[in-house]
Amino acid sequence: MDNNDFFEGQEKLLEVWFKPPNSTITPGKHPHRDDAQGLRAIPRARVEGILDEAKCCILDAFHGDFMDSYVLSESSLFITAYRIILKTCGTTRLLPALPLIVQAAADVGLTEIDDMFFSRREFIAPHTQEFPHRDFREEVAYLDQYFDGVAYPLGRLNGDRWYLYTLNNQLHITCPDVTVEIMMTSLDRTAMNAFYKSTLTAREVTQQSGIADIVPGAHIHEFLFDPCGYSCNAVFGEFYFTIHVTPQEEFSYVSFETDVLKEDYTPMILKVLDIFKPGKFSINVFANEHAPFGNAQNAFNIQQVQGAGFQRHDQQLCCLAHASVLFGHFTSNTHTAIEDAEQHQRRQRVPGYKALVATPPPAAA
Amino acid sequence: MDNNDFFEGQEKLLEVWFKPPNSTITPGKHPHRDDAQGLRAIPRARVEGILDEAKCCILDAFHGDFMDSYVLSESSLFITAYRIILKTCGTTRLLPALPLIVQAAADVGLTEIDDMFFSRREFIAPHTQEFPHRDFREEVAYLDQYFDGVAYPLGRLNGDRWYLYTLNNQLHITCPDVTVEIMMTSLDRTAMNAFYKSTLTAREVTQQSGIADIVPGAHIHEFLFDPCGYSCNAVFGEFYFTIHVTPQEEFSYVSFETDVLKEDYTPMILKVLDIFKPGKFSINVFANEHAPFGNAQNAFNIQQVQGAGFQRHDQQLCCLAHASVLFGHFTSNTHTAIEDAEQHQRRQRVPGYKALVATPPPAAA
Repeated sequence: MDNNDFFEGQEKLLEVWFKPPNSTITPGKHPHRDDAQGLRAIPRARVEGILDEAKCCILDAFHGDFMDSYVLSESSLFITAYRIILKTCGTTRLLPALPLIVQAAADVGLTEIDDMFFSRREFIAPHTQEFPHRDFREEVAYLDQYFDGVAYPLGRLNGDRWYLYTLNNQLHITCPDVTVEIMMTSLDRTAMNAFYKSTLTAREVTQQSGIADIVPGAHIHEFLFDPCGYSCNAVFGEFYFTIHVTPQEEFSYVSFETDVLKEDYTPMILKVLDIFKPGKFSINVFANEHAPFGNAQNAFNIQQVQGAGFQRHDQQLCCLAHASVLFGHFTSNTHTAIEDAEQHQRRQRVPGYKALVATPPPAAA
Repeated sequence: MDNNDFFEGQEKLLEVWFKPPNSTITPGKHPHRDDAQGLRAIPRARVEGILDEAKCCILDAFHGDFMDSYVLSESSLFITAYRIILKTCGTTRLLPALPLIVQAAADVGLTEIDDMFFSRREFIAPHTQEFPHRDFREEVAYLDQYFDGVAYPLGRLNGDRWYLYTLNNQLHITCPDVTVEIMMTSLDRTAMNAFYKSTLTAREVTQQSGIADIVPGAHIHEFLFDPCGYSCNAVFGEFYFTIHVTPQEEFSYVSFETDVLKEDYTPMILKVLDIFKPGKFSINVFANEHAPFGNAQNAFNIQQVQGAGFQRHDQQLCCLAHASVLFGHFTSNTHTAIEDAEQHQRRQRVPGYKALVATPPPAAA
């Protein structure tokens, strides 16, 4: 792999909920179906200043009934009345933008944070990141300056893992709130070929890839990068989904994220897996205490995912004070065969436990 | 706290299962109810050599029908036909003893490891530990030399957490296997006074503290340290429990661990909490796929634990290939009030998120 060509597709994700002025809370009403301007009143120039700090910029914008959606040079931004979601990939500096977000919110009258979530998967190349993103401990120390939050590493220390920092507060909402993220790697080459610049327009890529069919009727705006790479945001009522594709074989990565409310996410997950055909993927589900299916491990049917040709290697359920979070890691049956062969080779190389027999214990480093 | 007096009560725990010779596996039969000598044929001098390497020694021994039980200068050792459990506290070097264990097992004809588990809670004073125990990453690197295992950090990065390394294999047993550990801190002073050297014998401490009532009829052997500290091992048929008490106020710690099989661990857990009255405790439950209650989160009733005056702060369920592991962290209602006050003070000291407003982002370190 040529390091000059390397691109870190895996995103840093920040979601901040501001407390609505009391008068606007209606029990049972979805907080994103609010006619109030709230954060949407932040002027475009301020939004661009926030993105400057994070080292990215706006490529395309869509203003829906309840949401402003921006496709960025590195991923996406969604602004609803009381919630901002900023997702940035590459070597962007996401967290240093947080103080600017809070300042801009205060300037439109939103001075209290209800809760915040910062999460990311372990980077492919952590050493290419800048402060404070060089290590999750560094990110936690940065956030602990301002917040009294909780930090969870989920997954394996010596394998795929995902990090979450949250205030662990109870949001001032009485309706379900769910976020599902699928983070895919080792993707099928034929599936990835669609995301290289060709004679097709970005819109045609959205249609021909099957992305347009994930949520029929959603307003999708997209960007096809040169020579390759693809981003889209979809807005449908108060909900969104967003997809980012880094198709290069050496570090292929696709992310799918949505906050759409469903009783069963299995069909949507299978649809996404069918479009991109990952060799491996992580999934995480955040579900608040009002979610219709109970805790996050009931959001989808694992047997159906296995039936679609994937093996589960890891699953962890983390109970928060008023929500639960699931982390799962899966490998396709094809890729499992490859990994088994690699493991066999690795076991040939390393002495294995049999070498413990008649081997003196290693001395201190 | 005088660092010279400090003692790290929190143990490192190693459990190694060796594959029995094929002829001795009887489906449904508990593997520890085996008349075979297996590991119990390892000569005492070899056992002492293993403990020398770990930097601890035998204080007391009991030889039961199915198990050899040793109370150590730093915690405990249990040897059944095919399983060895070595638990050591202080600044012992547990993992360097592993090659000697494997060698000794090979010399009595047990040459295959079925599975192994290494676990510990985050140390109170990690900097006092020696190689390879200075950091979980170091421990994982040590184990990865020999094994192709999985390493999980459970709990909070910025709070109480527990680490597990396992081969994630399917044990060659067809019966339930469960381990429950309760790791208690900030313990009640009156409860702890019982574990200082006085006119009472160690046996009287076992009886008067209530420890003798946890499993009526268990054979208990114990040691009372001078000037304080207490250890006991209990053996009942093929099962054990073990308790270790570090009573000093500045770093009080008590651990309880058992492999007894129950359909509901709630009464036993409440009994242990009632004896030691912790301000805080972590609990972890390992349950294999044959456990009568299903996965590890069903091992006890959380409402009853909350009813006994404890609040749950964390709960994570980790699914292994053929087992599940629960990690939970609880604080007593009294201690929660203290922690809330400390949090309030901390929030006064740190700028808090409101300082994000009109504060420039910190520069790189």
